Amino acid sequence: MAGCAFTSRLSPLVRGSFCGKVCCPAGRTAAVRAFSRAVTCTQLQRVQGTGALTGKVDRFGGVTVNLADTGLPADISESSFSGLLRDSLVQWKADGKVAVWLRVPISLSRCAAAASAHGFTFHHAKNDHTVLALWLGEGESRLPGFATHQIGVAGAVVDESSGKVLVVQDRNKTKNAWKFPGGLSDPGENIGATAVREVFEETGVRSEFRSLLSIRQQHNHPGAFGMSDMYIICRLSPLTYEINFCTQECLRCEWLDLGELAKTNDTTPITTRIARLLLHGLEHGFNRVDLTMEELPAVYSGMFYQLYHRQLPTTLKS
Amino acid sequence: MAGCAFTSRLSPLVRGSFCGKVCCPAGRTAAVRAFSRAVTCTQLQRVQGTGALTGKVDRFGGVTVNLADTGLPADISESSFSGLLRDSLVQWKADGKVAVWLRVPISLSRCAAAASAHGFTFHHAKNDHTVLALWLGEGESRLPGFATHQIGVAGAVVDESSGKVLVVQDRNKTKNAWKFPGGLSDPGENIGATAVREVFEETGVRSEFRSLLSIRQQHNHPGAFGMSDMYIICRLSPLTYEINFCTQECLRCEWLDLGELAKTNDTTPITTRIARLLLHGLEHGFNRVDLTMEELPAVYSGMFYQLYHRQLPTTLKS
Repeated sequence: MAGCAFTSRLSPLVRGSFCGKVCCPAGRTAAVRAFSRAVTCTQLQRVQGTGALTGKVDRFGGVTVNLADTGLPADISESSFSGLLRDSLVQWKADGKVAVWLRVPISLSRCAAAASAHGFTFHHAKNDHTVLALWLGEGESRLPGFATHQIGVAGAVVDESSGKVLVVQDRNKTKNAWKFPGGLSDPGENIGATAVREVFEETGVRSEFRSLLSIRQQHNHPGAFGMSDMYIICRLSPLTYEINFCTQECLRCEWLDLGELAKTNDTTPITTRIARLLLHGLEHGFNRVDLTMEELPAVYSGMFYQLYHRQLPTTLKS
Repeated sequence: MAGCAFTSRLSPLVRGSFCGKVCCPAGRTAAVRAFSRAVTCTQLQRVQGTGALTGKVDRFGGVTVNLADTGLPADISESSFSGLLRDSLVQWKADGKVAVWLRVPISLSRCAAAASAHGFTFHHAKNDHTVLALWLGEGESRLPGFATHQIGVAGAVVDESSGKVLVVQDRNKTKNAWKFPGGLSDPGENIGATAVREVFEETGVRSEFRSLLSIRQQHNHPGAFGMSDMYIICRLSPLTYEINFCTQECLRCEWLDLGELAKTNDTTPITTRIARLLLHGLEHGFNRVDLTMEELPAVYSGMFYQLYHRQLPTTLKS
């Protein structure tokens, strides 16, 4: 929820403005992260109704107005909403509020145009609503941004008994390069689950997650709507071996000898590198190349997260 | 650009619909990623003007309409736009188009409300515009999603000569737990740069990137507007040692003995784990715990990306 997220990030930002250190006004801090775990929606309790619009006030100086909750007429005009917003802004500024969030249902989108005339900009949009924001505090806006990365995952399925790895060639490429099957994570999907799903969808081979091998960060990634891309390659073990690849996606799909993949020019630099890592692991033990995964409970939410790092000696692990 | 991103993802999706494999209709494929590198905006050349609205057609069956380019009157009414869109949709459907993207400047937001009555939903929004989408093809929408993750980075600055590491305690926490300084990556910022920046902003200590130690994925992360969070911890080396911490963000900041940090209860599970990794590295060499980073040029764009994995023996590296 926008209001909660705002409070979580705003806290140190607001406090930053009172800090004598030169570095603080940038306002991007570890406390953001810490607070984001501790703050919940229950903190948005006090309702601010002295202006024309009713907003919920958080303890860090922000106001959140959900236009679906304000009882506005469904056919309110842009000029009427603009008037309401203008009056509300006068009040909020007088009250020392530092930011306003507007959650706008798609059916009331005309209110976004009205808000833009008061300086609001789009923060994000999902499905049936958009969220706009306006910084009222001193200096540049210190509001938190929205998600910046998509996560792509590939699976290197290694058959240890034969020393072969499952590779594909995409259709319609100018160069027929061997690569590991993979694709974008769905919202809420774990890395390993993406790898296993994508491998099956493309090749028909079932597999299980073993380890994480590498990550690559790339900005302004084509196909990411101007955002960044995190590309992760996992090591998987095969559960089935029969290839039944999607002929609409792939030109070829094979179990290829790892040594051959490490040497061929018909591949990408990352695939070559990972092939060498895997060859090293096959010959000397995969503990030479793996990041192992462990599920741990989050301190505040109780939800489980997945942590990946080099394996520790058992004596040091717990 | 939305249109380009769409084409990059749509390609295999459209082809998937002709594929006999059960797995394909899910349409999430490696080809997506491969195409996303190869497809550029120049593919959106053919202009579709037979309907009431002028859109650009991509070779994968999608139409992109940028309302800033269509010459619409700035004061066009919702009902007028709705009529234009209705006529256009009739034409696009007759032409067999599978999807429509609408790029809407914030000043024309009322057009988003009109579009929603025709089934469009928000895909994303940034600053001064939003992008809506409508799937016209068979079955469920196969349009690509928007960025799903924020990236948080912490820096563990290890002073090898003393065996100490730089830690902070956040203000206003219910429990005073030692942790590594860190925060959210800015858009377009590399992992190591975030770590170095955050450490300096919070503690006043300057440092340089050494390696990546661990990553953690968490979904429905508080403070991420319902999206997911990737939390990455880097190993840094100090360039300065004097602490000048931000008193508005931090309660305490110290160079703490790694062995003490690995044992104390006044910390988080991840910090304990990383302290043990670092202790192991300090005693037996950091090559036991590091993921090294290398910059490599991207095949298609020529831009550089950063790749992180276990270090390979020199003989296997190139």
